[in-house]
Amino acid sequence: MILDQVALPHKVEYIPCTDYKMACRCIREMNVRGAPAIGITAAMGVALAARDVSAPDYAGFVKELQPALDELMATRPTAVNLRWAIDRMMEFVEGMSGRPVEEIKAALFEEAQRVLDEDIEINRMIGVHGSALIRDGARVLTHCNAGSLATGGYGTATAPMRIAAEKGKRISVFADETRPLLQGARLTSWELMQSGIDVTLITDNSAGALMRKGEIDLVIVGTDRTARNGDVANKIGTYMVAVLARENNIPFYVAAPLSSIDFTMASGDEIPIEERGEDEVYNICGGLMVAPEGVKCRNLAFDVTPAKYVTGIITQKGVFRPADLHLLVDPAADLEAAKL
Amino acid sequence: MILDQVALPHKVEYIPCTDYKMACRCIREMNVRGAPAIGITAAMGVALAARDVSAPDYAGFVKELQPALDELMATRPTAVNLRWAIDRMMEFVEGMSGRPVEEIKAALFEEAQRVLDEDIEINRMIGVHGSALIRDGARVLTHCNAGSLATGGYGTATAPMRIAAEKGKRISVFADETRPLLQGARLTSWELMQSGIDVTLITDNSAGALMRKGEIDLVIVGTDRTARNGDVANKIGTYMVAVLARENNIPFYVAAPLSSIDFTMASGDEIPIEERGEDEVYNICGGLMVAPEGVKCRNLAFDVTPAKYVTGIITQKGVFRPADLHLLVDPAADLEAAKL
Repeated sequence: MILDQVALPHKVEYIPCTDYKMACRCIREMNVRGAPAIGITAAMGVALAARDVSAPDYAGFVKELQPALDELMATRPTAVNLRWAIDRMMEFVEGMSGRPVEEIKAALFEEAQRVLDEDIEINRMIGVHGSALIRDGARVLTHCNAGSLATGGYGTATAPMRIAAEKGKRISVFADETRPLLQGARLTSWELMQSGIDVTLITDNSAGALMRKGEIDLVIVGTDRTARNGDVANKIGTYMVAVLARENNIPFYVAAPLSSIDFTMASGDEIPIEERGEDEVYNICGGLMVAPEGVKCRNLAFDVTPAKYVTGIITQKGVFRPADLHLLVDPAADLEAAKL
Repeated sequence: MILDQVALPHKVEYIPCTDYKMACRCIREMNVRGAPAIGITAAMGVALAARDVSAPDYAGFVKELQPALDELMATRPTAVNLRWAIDRMMEFVEGMSGRPVEEIKAALFEEAQRVLDEDIEINRMIGVHGSALIRDGARVLTHCNAGSLATGGYGTATAPMRIAAEKGKRISVFADETRPLLQGARLTSWELMQSGIDVTLITDNSAGALMRKGEIDLVIVGTDRTARNGDVANKIGTYMVAVLARENNIPFYVAAPLSSIDFTMASGDEIPIEERGEDEVYNICGGLMVAPEGVKCRNLAFDVTPAKYVTGIITQKGVFRPADLHLLVDPAADLEAAKL
């Protein structure tokens, strides 16, 4: 069941994903979005696709599964969690090589559930590490939605806020509305209000002025894919927020579960950036035409924030400088010593 | 007659301003907006208010006119052209001191028309000076609407683009949509399309990414009030565009008729910044609710861009560095030598 994020905040509706085609459609149409939630959905999509394979033997099973994996992988280009989840599920399949196909099918549902369960625990650990960065009374800015709706639990960017609030710190959050799809207005403000966290919605244009007025103490955002050097791909506009934060001496943190860090990519220049339809610009949420008919639009869905603007990356293993990210895949590294 | 900018681009409708109360309402409700257009409307509002004064003598006329001037002045706080226009009209009244009231009333309509006529010529000169900054093939970013709709003629920020195009330069324009009121989407893209200038609409979040990708050659924006030191108050988000432009080594120009430069203000810190209703954030153009009921919003209508981010200020007298603006009111200054 997928909580339909296109319908929020006006309608709380669930979409039953009864086959992998529905999972593909929900990712592509953004009924589910947010890098970790996309990963979880893809994992469950693999389990659904496997269930419907008719081949009785292992080799036939793997072969018949491949087109579904390709289709899931092609739903959206930027979030690395999609590949991470599909790879994980296929490694799991390989680990069961030679076992009866029906047994593999059942085990894949359990593995997909583990992806979700682990995500919840990862978010909580991001919250534990990140909440240390938030002092009592802090005013936090976030962009887009890297909250519960984007993940399996506390959210990524919101986890430090939620844990700080649980610990009794009085915090307030500014949520960028995040055009074009308004995830900040529709989702972040909704879920923080539901959790009783003080939230103020602003237009994306306002973030800089509030920073300059001294009304923002730190920024925490999520990421769809972070490269090994700490370059961060995230929702369009994140780069502007990061540059403004540095210009105003405000720390800028990225909450990144390890599944969103692509250690195979040397820098953000290699990250594919999705361009979406013009209609998202001129027709707001499909409900309001705001520009003249026939207007030409550009709609970059993500941007890349160079590592130099990033104060720290909050992972489930601790908070690290972008330049130290590579230590996370170095078995000889002393992670404790590298922590920010 | 005021072209209703709230109804654009879907409806082209005119509002007859038959008394100064209607002029006040049109400024306050933003049926007319843009600093120079506000100034012109205020000048015409003064003429309308004067027409309806019943006092037969000069002293009574001036006294009876005062409440209307106060009401016009209070319509919006940030644009200095409002005060500039009202002051100009009242200096004109003082110049006719002792003349028959009916003669003054008639002359005020002529003076208001001169404010409009002069604005058209000022815009043209801004275009002549500014077009020299735009090379053939240039890609120009603008924010909000400082076009024909905001002024009496070529616009301020758009005048250099229009004159460059008239001279045969092939230019293209990126228009920030400019939340919350979407003047870029509704007005700038509309008027540039009408003029046959190539325009691409983008979300405010996209400006930084396009700059970083090398797709923008220069920025030109308007201003609601520029202080003597070159600090620029303009539509919210301008500051973010300016910081991103400097970060990417892209020249950032402000088109500022002298009427929008407040030489009485030492710096931008003194400029009053209007905060408008929360509804403009959560209810887009009064037509689409995009946030949960009861959400708290902040809605700064303008921000201040410090002079250090401004490459040049394009006036009807030429293009100047912010630090040289004060020369424009120095009778001993050599303006030719100071030009950028």
